[in-house]
Amino acid sequence: MKKAVVLLSGGLDSTTCMSVAYKAGYELYPLSFDYGQRHQRELDAAKAVAQYYKVKEHRIIKIDSVGGSALTDSAIQVPDYAEDGEIPVTYVPARNILFLSYALGYGEVIGAEAIFIGISSVDYSGYPDCRPEFLQAFQKVVDVGTKAGVSGQTIAIKAPLMYLSKAETIQLAVENDAPLHSTTSCYRGGEKACGTCDSCALRLKGFAEAGIKDPISYKEMD
Amino acid sequence: MKKAVVLLSGGLDSTTCMSVAYKAGYELYPLSFDYGQRHQRELDAAKAVAQYYKVKEHRIIKIDSVGGSALTDSAIQVPDYAEDGEIPVTYVPARNILFLSYALGYGEVIGAEAIFIGISSVDYSGYPDCRPEFLQAFQKVVDVGTKAGVSGQTIAIKAPLMYLSKAETIQLAVENDAPLHSTTSCYRGGEKACGTCDSCALRLKGFAEAGIKDPISYKEMD
Repeated sequence: MKKAVVLLSGGLDSTTCMSVAYKAGYELYPLSFDYGQRHQRELDAAKAVAQYYKVKEHRIIKIDSVGGSALTDSAIQVPDYAEDGEIPVTYVPARNILFLSYALGYGEVIGAEAIFIGISSVDYSGYPDCRPEFLQAFQKVVDVGTKAGVSGQTIAIKAPLMYLSKAETIQLAVENDAPLHSTTSCYRGGEKACGTCDSCALRLKGFAEAGIKDPISYKEMD
Repeated sequence: MKKAVVLLSGGLDSTTCMSVAYKAGYELYPLSFDYGQRHQRELDAAKAVAQYYKVKEHRIIKIDSVGGSALTDSAIQVPDYAEDGEIPVTYVPARNILFLSYALGYGEVIGAEAIFIGISSVDYSGYPDCRPEFLQAFQKVVDVGTKAGVSGQTIAIKAPLMYLSKAETIQLAVENDAPLHSTTSCYRGGEKACGTCDSCALRLKGFAEAGIKDPISYKEMD
Protein backbone atom coordinates (compact mmCIF):
# COMPACT_ATOMS: atom_id res chain seq x y z
CA MET A 1 0.00 0.00 0.00
CA LYS A 2 1.41 3.38 -0.96
CA LYS A 3 2.18 5.67 1.95
CA ALA A 4 1.72 9.40 2.43
CA VAL A 5 2.90 11.73 5.15
CA VAL A 6 0.17 14.29 5.85
CA LEU A 7 1.04 17.50 7.67
CA LEU A 8 -1.79 17.67 10.17
CA SER A 9 -2.38 20.75 12.29
CA GLY A 10 -5.90 19.83 13.30
CA GLY A 11 -7.29 22.70 11.24
CA LEU A 12 -9.77 22.69 8.40
CA ASP A 13 -7.22 22.61 5.58
CA SER A 14 -4.95 19.84 6.83
CA THR A 15 -7.98 17.75 7.78
CA THR A 16 -9.32 18.15 4.25
CA CYS A 17 -5.89 16.99 3.02
CA MET A 18 -6.24 13.87 5.16
CA SER A 19 -9.56 13.15 3.46
CA VAL A 20 -8.06 13.67 -0.01
CA ALA A 21 -5.08 11.39 0.69
CA TYR A 22 -7.40 8.78 2.22
CA LYS A 23 -9.67 8.81 -0.82
CA ALA A 24 -6.65 8.51 -3.11
CA GLY A 25 -5.81 5.21 -1.40
CA TYR A 26 -2.77 6.19 0.62
CA GLU A 27 -1.92 4.70 3.97
CA LEU A 28 -1.87 7.83 6.12
CA TYR A 29 1.07 8.90 8.29
CA PRO A 30 -0.03 12.19 9.82
CA LEU A 31 2.70 14.37 11.27
CA SER A 32 1.99 17.15 13.76
CA PHE A 33 4.19 19.63 15.57
CA ASP A 34 4.32 20.93 19.06
CA TYR A 35 6.09 24.20 18.36
CA GLY A 36 5.19 26.45 21.21
CA GLN A 37 1.70 27.17 20.00
CA ARG A 38 -0.23 29.22 22.49
CA HIS A 39 -2.59 26.35 23.14
CA GLN A 40 -2.83 22.59 23.10
CA ARG A 41 -6.22 22.70 21.42
CA GLU A 42 -4.65 22.36 17.99
CA LEU A 43 -2.84 19.16 18.92
CA ASP A 44 -5.97 17.72 20.52
CA ALA A 45 -7.83 18.37 17.29
CA ALA A 46 -5.04 16.74 15.28
CA LYS A 47 -5.21 13.67 17.50
CA ALA A 48 -8.98 13.44 17.07
CA VAL A 49 -8.65 13.64 13.29
CA ALA A 50 -5.90 10.99 13.27
CA GLN A 51 -8.13 8.70 15.33
CA TYR A 52 -11.04 9.26 12.98
CA TYR A 53 -8.89 7.83 10.19
CA LYS A 54 -7.62 4.98 12.42
CA VAL A 55 -3.99 5.67 11.48
CA LYS A 56 -1.20 3.27 12.41
CA GLU A 57 1.07 6.02 13.69
CA HIS A 58 0.62 9.71 14.46
CA ARG A 59 3.94 11.36 15.11
CA ILE A 60 4.04 14.59 17.05
CA ILE A 61 7.40 16.28 16.84
CA LYS A 62 8.37 18.83 19.43
CA ILE A 63 10.26 21.71 17.90
CA ASP A 64 12.05 24.60 19.51
CA SER A 65 10.44 27.79 18.34
CA VAL A 66 12.69 30.44 16.92
CA GLY A 67 10.21 33.13 17.94
CA GLY A 68 9.39 36.33 16.14
CA SER A 69 5.75 35.49 15.49
CA ALA A 70 2.47 36.25 17.18
CA LEU A 71 1.60 32.56 16.91
CA THR A 72 4.52 31.40 19.01
CA ASP A 73 5.61 34.40 21.03
CA SER A 74 3.19 35.39 23.76
CA ALA A 75 4.60 38.94 23.89
CA ILE A 76 3.07 39.70 20.47
CA GLN A 77 -0.70 40.20 20.23
CA VAL A 78 -2.72 38.28 17.65
CA PRO A 79 -4.39 40.99 15.55
CA ASP A 80 -7.85 40.98 14.00
CA TYR A 81 -8.17 40.27 10.30
CA ALA A 82 -7.02 43.06 7.97
CA GLU A 83 -7.07 42.85 4.18
CA ASP A 84 -4.07 45.10 3.59
CA GLY A 85 -1.78 42.90 1.49
CA GLU A 86 0.98 42.96 4.13
CA ILE A 87 2.61 39.85 5.53
CA PRO A 88 0.96 39.72 8.99
CA VAL A 89 2.70 39.29 12.36
CA THR A 90 1.19 35.81 12.52
CA TYR A 91 3.76 34.79 9.86
CA VAL A 92 6.09 32.24 11.47
CA PRO A 93 9.54 32.45 9.87
CA ALA A 94 10.22 29.47 7.62
CA ARG A 95 7.42 27.44 9.20
CA ASN A 96 6.24 25.51 6.17
CA ILE A 97 9.83 24.96 5.06
CA LEU A 98 10.61 23.49 8.45
CA PHE A 99 7.46 21.35 8.52
CA LEU A 100 8.12 20.04 5.01
CA SER A 101 11.73 19.25 5.93
CA TYR A 102 10.58 17.09 8.82
CA ALA A 103 7.95 15.45 6.61
CA LEU A 104 10.65 14.72 4.08
CA GLY A 105 12.98 13.08 6.59
CA TYR A 106 10.09 11.02 7.95
CA GLY A 107 8.89 10.24 4.44
CA GLU A 108 12.32 8.93 3.46
CA VAL A 109 12.46 6.72 6.54
CA ILE A 110 9.04 5.11 6.00
CA GLY A 111 9.34 5.00 2.19
CA ALA A 112 6.49 7.43 1.47
CA GLU A 113 5.53 8.33 -2.08
CA ALA A 114 3.89 11.61 -1.20
CA ILE A 115 3.65 14.40 1.34
CA PHE A 116 0.37 16.29 1.65
CA ILE A 117 0.28 19.89 2.81
CA GLY A 118 -2.86 22.00 3.11
CA ILE A 119 -1.59 25.30 1.73
CA SER A 120 -3.70 27.42 -0.59
CA SER A 121 -2.77 30.43 -2.66
CA VAL A 122 -6.40 31.57 -2.91
CA ASP A 123 -7.77 32.39 0.53
CA TYR A 124 -4.47 32.61 2.33
CA SER A 125 -3.21 35.08 4.87
CA GLY A 126 -0.43 36.59 2.75
CA TYR A 127 2.28 34.09 3.64
CA PRO A 128 4.90 33.65 0.90
CA ASP A 129 5.23 29.94 1.71
CA CYS A 130 1.67 29.20 0.60
CA ARG A 131 2.20 29.93 -3.09
CA PRO A 132 2.75 27.62 -6.08
CA GLU A 133 6.23 29.12 -6.67
CA PHE A 134 7.21 28.00 -3.20
CA LEU A 135 5.85 24.51 -3.74
CA GLN A 136 7.70 24.10 -7.04
CA ALA A 137 10.92 25.34 -5.48
CA PHE A 138 10.59 22.92 -2.59
CA GLN A 139 9.86 20.00 -4.93
CA LYS A 140 13.12 20.76 -6.70
CA VAL A 141 14.95 20.57 -3.36
CA VAL A 142 13.46 17.11 -2.84
CA ASP A 143 14.37 15.99 -6.36
CA VAL A 144 18.03 16.99 -6.16
CA GLY A 145 18.72 16.97 -2.42
CA THR A 146 17.40 13.67 -1.09
CA LYS A 147 18.24 10.01 -1.53
CA ALA A 148 14.68 9.36 -2.71
CA GLY A 149 14.94 12.17 -5.27
CA VAL A 150 18.28 11.23 -6.78
CA SER A 151 17.40 7.55 -6.95
CA GLY A 152 14.54 8.37 -9.30
CA GLN A 153 11.72 7.69 -6.82
CA THR A 154 11.15 11.17 -5.57
CA ILE A 155 8.59 12.04 -2.95
CA ALA A 156 5.83 14.17 -4.47
CA ILE A 157 4.78 17.21 -2.48
CA LYS A 158 1.03 17.49 -2.95
CA ALA A 159 -1.02 20.55 -2.14
CA PRO A 160 -4.52 19.59 -3.23
CA LEU A 161 -6.02 22.83 -1.90
CA MET A 162 -3.59 25.13 -3.72
CA TYR A 163 -6.19 26.49 -6.15
CA LEU A 164 -9.29 26.09 -3.99
CA SER A 165 -11.04 28.89 -2.17
CA LYS A 166 -11.92 28.27 1.45
CA ALA A 167 -15.54 27.62 0.38
CA GLU A 168 -14.39 25.03 -2.17
CA THR A 169 -12.15 23.40 0.43
CA ILE A 170 -15.12 23.10 2.78
CA GLN A 171 -17.27 21.59 0.03
CA LEU A 172 -14.52 19.08 -0.74
CA ALA A 173 -14.18 18.19 2.95
CA VAL A 174 -17.92 17.59 3.27
CA GLU A 175 -17.97 15.45 0.09
CA ASN A 176 -15.11 13.38 1.54
CA ASP A 177 -16.74 13.00 4.98
CA ALA A 178 -13.82 14.75 6.67
CA PRO A 179 -14.35 15.17 10.44
CA LEU A 180 -14.79 18.95 10.39
CA HIS A 181 -16.47 18.84 13.79
CA SER A 182 -13.09 17.88 15.29
CA THR A 183 -11.10 20.70 13.71
CA THR A 184 -10.03 23.99 15.17
CA SER A 185 -8.82 27.06 13.30
CA CYS A 186 -8.68 29.89 15.85
CA TYR A 187 -5.30 31.53 16.37
CA ARG A 188 -6.34 32.67 19.83
CA GLY A 189 -7.07 29.16 21.03
CA GLY A 190 -9.69 29.89 23.68
CA GLU A 191 -12.22 27.28 24.75
CA LYS A 192 -14.43 28.46 21.91
CA ALA A 193 -13.12 29.95 18.66
CA CYS A 194 -12.96 33.78 18.77
CA GLY A 195 -14.52 34.35 15.36
CA THR A 196 -12.44 37.46 14.66
CA CYS A 197 -8.79 36.53 14.08
CA ASP A 198 -7.48 36.04 10.50
CA SER A 199 -8.03 32.35 10.61
CA CYS A 200 -11.55 32.41 12.11
CA ALA A 201 -12.57 35.19 9.71
CA LEU A 202 -11.45 33.18 6.66
CA ARG A 203 -13.12 30.05 7.99
CA LEU A 204 -16.45 31.73 8.71
CA LYS A 205 -16.45 33.46 5.33
CA GLY A 206 -15.74 30.09 3.69
CA PHE A 207 -18.62 28.31 5.42
CA ALA A 208 -20.96 31.20 4.57
CA GLU A 209 -19.96 31.10 0.89
CA ALA A 210 -20.25 27.32 0.78
CA GLY A 211 -23.73 27.52 2.29
CA ILE A 212 -22.74 25.01 4.96
CA LYS A 213 -23.10 25.35 8.72
CA ASP A 214 -19.79 25.29 10.60
CA PRO A 215 -20.10 22.39 13.08
CA ILE A 216 -17.81 23.99 15.71
CA SER A 217 -18.82 26.54 18.37
CA TYR A 218 -17.85 30.19 18.45
CA LYS A 219 -17.79 32.68 21.27
CA GLU A 220 -20.95 34.73 21.25
CA MET A 221 -20.08 38.12 19.94
CA ASP A 222 -21.74 41.08 21.63
CA MET B 1 27.08 45.18 11.46
CA LYS B 2 25.86 42.54 9.04
CA LYS B 3 24.83 39.26 10.61
CA ALA B 4 25.33 35.67 9.54
CA VAL B 5 23.93 32.42 10.87
CA VAL B 6 26.63 29.75 10.69
CA LEU B 7 25.65 26.10 10.89
CA LEU B 8 28.21 24.81 13.37
CA SER B 9 28.65 21.11 14.04
CA GLY B 10 32.02 21.45 15.69
CA GLY B 11 33.69 19.68 12.77
CA LEU B 12 36.44 20.82 10.47
CA ASP B 13 34.22 22.16 7.72
CA SER B 14 31.76 24.19 9.77
CA THR B 15 34.63 25.62 11.82
CA THR B 16 36.32 26.72 8.62
CA CYS B 17 33.02 28.36 7.65
CA MET B 18 33.06 30.28 10.93
CA SER B 19 36.51 31.60 10.03
CA VAL B 20 35.41 32.61 6.54
CA ALA B 21 32.33 34.45 7.81
CA TYR B 22 34.39 36.11 10.54
CA LYS B 23 36.97 37.30 8.02
CA ALA B 24 34.21 38.62 5.78
CA GLY B 25 33.11 40.90 8.61
CA TYR B 26 29.90 39.24 9.70
CA GLU B 27 28.66 39.18 13.26
CA LEU B 28 28.49 35.44 13.87
CA TYR B 29 25.37 33.60 15.07
CA PRO B 30 26.38 29.97 15.19
CA LEU B 31 23.57 27.43 15.30
CA SER B 32 24.07 23.85 16.43
CA PHE B 33 21.76 20.89 16.80
CA ASP B 34 21.32 18.24 19.39
CA TYR B 35 19.70 15.62 17.19
CA GLY B 36 20.33 12.34 18.89
CA GLN B 37 23.96 12.11 17.87
CA ARG B 38 25.69 9.17 19.45
CA HIS B 39 27.90 11.45 21.46
CA GLN B 40 28.06 14.87 23.06
CA ARG B 41 31.61 15.40 21.84
CA GLU B 42 30.39 17.19 18.73
CA LEU B 43 28.40 19.73 20.73
CA ASP B 44 31.32 20.31 23.10
CA ALA B 45 33.52 21.04 20.10
CA ALA B 46 30.91 23.43 18.70
CA LYS B 47 30.77 25.27 22.03
CA ALA B 48 34.57 25.58 22.12
CA VAL B 49 34.61 27.01 18.59
CA ALA B 50 31.83 29.47 19.41
CA GLN B 51 33.77 30.63 22.47
CA TYR B 52 36.93 31.05 20.40
CA TYR B 53 35.03 33.58 18.27
CA LYS B 54 33.47 35.24 21.35
CA VAL B 55 30.01 35.08 19.85
CA LYS B 56 27.06 36.92 21.39
CA GLU B 57 24.75 33.94 21.15
CA HIS B 58 25.20 30.27 20.34
CA ARG B 59 21.87 28.56 19.90
CA ILE B 60 21.65 24.83 20.27
CA ILE B 61 18.38 23.45 19.03
CA LYS B 62 17.19 20.08 20.18
CA ILE B 63 15.53 18.15 17.39
CA ASP B 64 13.67 14.90 17.44
CA SER B 65 15.44 12.47 15.22
CA VAL B 66 13.39 10.69 12.63
CA GLY B 67 15.82 7.75 12.60
CA GLY B 68 16.90 5.62 9.72
CA SER B 69 20.57 6.59 9.85
CA ALA B 70 23.69 5.12 11.38
CA LEU B 71 24.50 8.54 12.80
CA THR B 72 21.36 8.76 14.87
CA ASP B 73 20.13 5.20 15.30
CA SER B 74 22.28 3.10 17.60
CA ALA B 75 20.95 -0.13 16.05
CA ILE B 76 22.85 0.61 12.81
CA GLN B 77 26.63 0.17 12.77
CA VAL B 78 28.86 2.96 11.47
CA PRO B 79 30.80 1.35 8.60
CA ASP B 80 34.39 1.97 7.56
CA TYR B 81 35.05 4.16 4.57
CA ALA B 82 34.23 2.63 1.18
CA GLU B 83 34.64 4.41 -2.13
CA ASP B 84 31.77 2.69 -3.92
CA GLY B 85 29.65 5.61 -5.14
CA GLU B 86 26.66 4.51 -3.05
CA ILE B 87 24.83 6.79 -0.63
CA PRO B 88 26.11 5.41 2.70
CA VAL B 89 24.05 4.40 5.75
CA THR B 90 25.42 7.48 7.52
CA TYR B 91 23.13 9.57 5.31
CA VAL B 92 20.59 11.25 7.61
CA PRO B 93 17.32 11.81 5.72
CA ALA B 94 16.82 15.48 4.89
CA ARG B 95 19.40 16.58 7.45
CA ASN B 96 20.84 19.57 5.64
CA ILE B 97 17.38 20.62 4.52
CA LEU B 98 16.21 20.55 8.11
CA PHE B 99 19.28 22.40 9.39
CA LEU B 100 18.96 25.08 6.71
CA SER B 101 15.27 25.48 7.51
CA TYR B 102 16.06 26.19 11.14
CA ALA B 103 18.86 28.55 10.11
CA LEU B 104 16.42 30.34 7.86
CA GLY B 105 13.81 30.82 10.57
CA TYR B 106 16.48 32.04 12.96
CA GLY B 107 18.04 34.22 10.26
CA GLU B 108 14.69 35.89 9.59
CA VAL B 109 14.18 36.59 13.27
CA ILE B 110 17.61 38.20 13.80
CA GLY B 111 17.70 39.91 10.39
CA ALA B 112 20.64 37.96 8.99
CA GLU B 113 21.99 38.62 5.51
CA ALA B 114 23.61 35.23 5.10
CA ILE B 115 23.64 31.63 6.23
CA PHE B 116 26.91 29.72 6.05
CA ILE B 117 26.96 25.97 5.59
CA GLY B 118 30.11 23.86 5.29
CA ILE B 119 29.06 21.48 2.54
CA SER B 120 31.44 20.49 -0.25
CA SER B 121 30.80 18.65 -3.48
CA VAL B 122 34.46 17.64 -3.82
CA ASP B 123 35.49 15.43 -0.92
CA TYR B 124 32.05 14.53 0.29
CA SER B 125 30.60 11.25 1.39
CA GLY B 126 28.11 10.85 -1.45
CA TYR B 127 25.27 12.79 0.15
CA PRO B 128 22.91 14.40 -2.39
CA ASP B 129 22.39 17.42 -0.13
CA CYS B 130 26.04 18.50 -0.48
CA ARG B 131 25.91 19.39 -4.16
CA PRO B 132 25.60 22.77 -5.94
CA GLU B 133 22.25 21.71 -7.46
CA PHE B 134 20.90 21.29 -3.96
CA LEU B 135 22.22 24.66 -2.83
CA GLN B 136 20.70 26.46 -5.82
CA ALA B 137 17.37 24.75 -5.27
CA PHE B 138 17.33 25.73 -1.60
CA GLN B 139 18.25 29.34 -2.41
CA LYS B 140 15.20 29.46 -4.66
CA VAL B 141 13.03 28.27 -1.75
CA VAL B 142 14.39 31.17 0.32
CA ASP B 143 13.82 33.67 -2.47
CA VAL B 144 10.18 32.76 -3.07
CA GLY B 145 9.11 31.23 0.23
CA THR B 146 10.21 33.64 2.95
CA LYS B 147 9.33 37.15 4.01
CA ALA B 148 12.99 38.16 3.57
CA GLY B 149 13.06 36.70 0.06
CA VAL B 150 9.86 38.27 -1.24
CA SER B 151 10.68 41.66 0.24
CA GLY B 152 13.78 41.81 -1.94
CA GLN B 153 16.30 41.33 0.87
CA THR B 154 16.81 37.64 0.60
CA ILE B 155 19.11 35.68 2.86
CA ALA B 156 22.06 34.34 0.87
CA ILE B 157 22.98 30.71 1.49
CA LYS B 158 26.76 30.59 1.33
CA ALA B 159 28.79 27.41 0.98
CA PRO B 160 32.37 28.67 0.76
CA LEU B 161 33.79 25.13 0.76
CA MET B 162 31.61 23.87 -2.12
CA TYR B 163 34.46 23.62 -4.60
CA LEU B 164 37.32 22.99 -2.18
CA SER B 165 38.94 19.65 -1.55
CA LYS B 166 39.44 18.66 2.08
CA ALA B 167 43.13 19.62 1.75
CA GLU B 168 42.18 23.07 0.44
CA THR B 169 39.67 23.50 3.25
CA ILE B 170 42.37 22.71 5.79
CA GLN B 171 44.74 25.20 4.17
CA LEU B 172 42.03 27.85 4.26
CA ALA B 173 41.30 27.12 7.91
CA VAL B 174 44.96 27.45 8.83
CA GLU B 175 45.28 30.73 6.88
CA ASN B 176 42.24 32.05 8.77
CA ASP B 177 43.49 30.91 12.19
CA ALA B 178 40.45 28.69 12.68
CA PRO B 179 40.60 26.70 15.94
CA LEU B 180 41.14 23.28 14.35
CA HIS B 181 42.47 21.89 17.65
CA SER B 182 38.93 22.21 19.05
CA THR B 183 37.18 20.38 16.24
CA THR B 184 36.05 16.79 16.04
CA SER B 185 35.10 14.81 12.97
CA CYS B 186 34.78 11.20 14.06
CA TYR B 187 31.39 9.55 13.47
CA ARG B 188 32.11 7.02 16.22
CA GLY B 189 32.64 9.68 18.86
CA GLY B 190 34.99 7.84 21.21
CA GLU B 191 37.34 9.71 23.54
CA LYS B 192 39.83 9.80 20.69
CA ALA B 193 38.90 9.86 17.00
CA CYS B 194 38.81 6.35 15.48
CA GLY B 195 40.73 7.24 12.34
CA THR B 196 38.82 4.75 10.18
CA CYS B 197 35.22 5.92 9.68
CA ASP B 198 34.27 7.89 6.51
CA SER B 199 34.71 11.18 8.21
CA CYS B 200 38.06 10.42 9.90
CA ALA B 201 39.39 8.89 6.67
CA LEU B 202 38.54 12.02 4.67
CA ARG B 203 39.98 14.27 7.35
CA LEU B 204 43.28 12.38 7.62
CA LYS B 205 43.64 12.22 3.85
CA GLY B 206 43.03 15.98 3.72
CA PHE B 207 45.68 16.79 6.32
CA ALA B 208 48.16 14.48 4.57
CA GLU B 209 47.54 16.15 1.21
CA ALA B 210 47.77 19.61 2.73
CA GLY B 211 51.08 18.69 4.36
CA ILE B 212 49.76 19.87 7.72
CA LYS B 213 49.73 17.96 10.98
CA ASP B 214 46.23 17.33 12.39
CA PRO B 215 46.23 18.90 15.87
CA ILE B 216 43.74 16.40 17.33
CA SER B 217 44.52 12.94 18.75
CA TYR B 218 43.63 9.62 17.20
CA LYS B 219 43.34 6.16 18.67
CA GLU B 220 46.52 4.23 18.07
CA MET B 221 45.83 1.71 15.36
CA ASP B 222 47.39 -1.73 15.70
